[in-house]
Amino acid sequence: MKNIVVLGSTGSVGTQALDVLHGLRANRTSNARLYEVVALAAHSNVDLMEEQVREFSPKLAVMYDEKAAVELKRRVGGLCEVDFGMDGLRRAASLRGDFPPNSPSIVVNALVGAIGLLPTIAAIESGNDIALANKETLVCAGEIIMPLAKEHGVEILPIDSEHSAIFQCLAEHGGWRENQSRHEEPNRAVERLILTASGGPFRGKTLLEMKDVSVEQALAHPNWSMGKKISIDSATMMNKGLEVIEGRCLFDMPPEKIDVVLHPQSVVHSMVEFCDGQVLAQLGAPDMRNVIQYALTYPARLSNNFGRIDFSRQFSLDFSPPDMINFPCLALAYASLKKGGLFPAVLNTANEVAVARFLNGEIGFLDIPKIIERTMSAYNENLRVDVDSILHAQKWAAQEALI
Amino acid sequence: MKNIVVLGSTGSVGTQALDVLHGLRANRTSNARLYEVVALAAHSNVDLMEEQVREFSPKLAVMYDEKAAVELKRRVGGLCEVDFGMDGLRRAASLRGDFPPNSPSIVVNALVGAIGLLPTIAAIESGNDIALANKETLVCAGEIIMPLAKEHGVEILPIDSEHSAIFQCLAEHGGWRENQSRHEEPNRAVERLILTASGGPFRGKTLLEMKDVSVEQALAHPNWSMGKKISIDSATMMNKGLEVIEGRCLFDMPPEKIDVVLHPQSVVHSMVEFCDGQVLAQLGAPDMRNVIQYALTYPARLSNNFGRIDFSRQFSLDFSPPDMINFPCLALAYASLKKGGLFPAVLNTANEVAVARFLNGEIGFLDIPKIIERTMSAYNENLRVDVDSILHAQKWAAQEALI
Repeated sequence: MKNIVVLGSTGSVGTQALDVLHGLRANRTSNARLYEVVALAAHSNVDLMEEQVREFSPKLAVMYDEKAAVELKRRVGGLCEVDFGMDGLRRAASLRGDFPPNSPSIVVNALVGAIGLLPTIAAIESGNDIALANKETLVCAGEIIMPLAKEHGVEILPIDSEHSAIFQCLAEHGGWRENQSRHEEPNRAVERLILTASGGPFRGKTLLEMKDVSVEQALAHPNWSMGKKISIDSATMMNKGLEVIEGRCLFDMPPEKIDVVLHPQSVVHSMVEFCDGQVLAQLGAPDMRNVIQYALTYPARLSNNFGRIDFSRQFSLDFSPPDMINFPCLALAYASLKKGGLFPAVLNTANEVAVARFLNGEIGFLDIPKIIERTMSAYNENLRVDVDSILHAQKWAAQEALI
Repeated sequence: MKNIVVLGSTGSVGTQALDVLHGLRANRTSNARLYEVVALAAHSNVDLMEEQVREFSPKLAVMYDEKAAVELKRRVGGLCEVDFGMDGLRRAASLRGDFPPNSPSIVVNALVGAIGLLPTIAAIESGNDIALANKETLVCAGEIIMPLAKEHGVEILPIDSEHSAIFQCLAEHGGWRENQSRHEEPNRAVERLILTASGGPFRGKTLLEMKDVSVEQALAHPNWSMGKKISIDSATMMNKGLEVIEGRCLFDMPPEKIDVVLHPQSVVHSMVEFCDGQVLAQLGAPDMRNVIQYALTYPARLSNNFGRIDFSRQFSLDFSPPDMINFPCLALAYASLKKGGLFPAVLNTANEVAVARFLNGEIGFLDIPKIIERTMSAYNENLRVDVDSILHAQKWAAQEALI
């Protein structure tokens, strides 16, 4: 029995996670009813949350927005508890399952942006494992999250095709196996992580050519169906930059051992090079549900019908080095890692604000890296990384990036 | 400490194995002198064997050819014992190491052809692990070798880029881990093995275009430096057919779950598709020493300087379905598996004889599949598979294929 909490259940990853759970619960061969949803949380989409509560019967449903919570309670108050706000998110993240009593849950953290940090900490402190789609959590706070997870014996399972690929390639060699936490054994045999990047809708374009791109053009990702924020991050390649930062924390690798390779087909989801020169790669159809299911069923694999790579047809996979000149966001991410401390948090918050402003029509596409660079240049504090200093840096960067 | 026996030490794989051992022994960081060579065996190349004895100081050196053994004894009799013939090969295969006393050896079986069977059995029965480059052993006798290995708790480590790739991809998921034999856990999560094939020097050609190809053209493999027999097998694609048969034994997969995919660049060495649709692939530079080293150092990985995939340059990897019409040897191999029993042994022996005749200028390139097909059609016994019936079928097929 696995007990599941989904934070961000009405968003792109959240709805796909529930789709996976629907499939796992409907699978009559071996897994029927092995997956219980104990809590759901979302921002303000009451209609969809009501549907989800009626299908999955959680113990707790949380709307971050208080008014939405009042409305949800009116509609489904008899079916489950309803809560709201950050306290509600933290409560959902801490909830343990009843099968068996008080067993740890897997918390799917599919919240978007910096709001994901505190619920992640709450989940870890209550001993729940994390299936982490909210990459900002590790980008901003990896230095505290990973030691905390180790301390509480909690697994961080990536919901992200690239890190899931690396996780799968390392499954043996990195030392995390069933009945053995991956914290126990460092990846001594691992020489390099190779993150693949589709390059987004503007791959191959120059800065000049991207000068006047519209929001619609930037949202049109060639391979993946994703939320708006992450689609824009993919167009700027900041998405890959955040993954480099995240990979550094998740796999305890220095940034100079994390490379990015352009691979427009998004079939190879990432690779690991070992010290003997051998490379393992994970391939799959570009469907986030594959990644979500692996995190939920790990260490087992269960069959599904999400689509496969078709080896009966002819196809090619292309690889080339990334273009850091025309996609400065990737270089900025490496730069933030080099500066260390709170700089990745500043980079991430500046990016969040800049992307929101671009989506809102306030600024142009190329203003995104400019705002991030300006915010990083203006930041000159060098505080110890803890929750308070991260929140402070985020608040500062959010103000600065609005200028 | 690992104790190593190399059978076929003067051949292509054998010399590369000693090159790997030379590197491992010279590596001063952690592995110096951790690898002891306890026995070497070869056919008749006395000059090279003398050099090898002087470098590696084995306890026993075997020349299959008795006259060569007499000459070797004259030259190095004071340095090690010298033996000859099949008894000598079996004795070498059974030899255990002195560090610690009576510890099992890893027997690199790099013998070419059907001669590899009896030494493999001798090694298993004495409790030595096998690093198997001699694919004919499993092709002809997989049905007895794998149960025997299980009975004696012996590992069969493939020296073959394709099966090594699959072995690496399965390292966790198939259930063979350090301190745990892979015999204990079936590959329930594995849905399909995907063997990649370069297609050899005649990829894309029709039967008509291959009618008059010369021995030199057939030997000119585009990617790999290999022995003559295996190079011709690669040109006919029988090599891939034998690997399908071998894969069936090594990984306990039915033939309909072993697919072949053409991949001319030989960068992806093979893949595994799991029940959840996810695929793991192993990539590397096309250098047999990588494969040999992995078998010798398994489950560890040690650094080397054999060359790497260069991800800083642009490159493409192409995949397409195989052509069973113009490369009938591949279809014949699947057919022999379907017939089962001794048919794979008959196929293999007929192929050995036909390839030797082609190399000798007696027959044309396209006569190879014709001879195999004719031999298989003429075979109508259906005996139980044991060592005697295999040897009998091989003897019969060798006669039949000479017609």
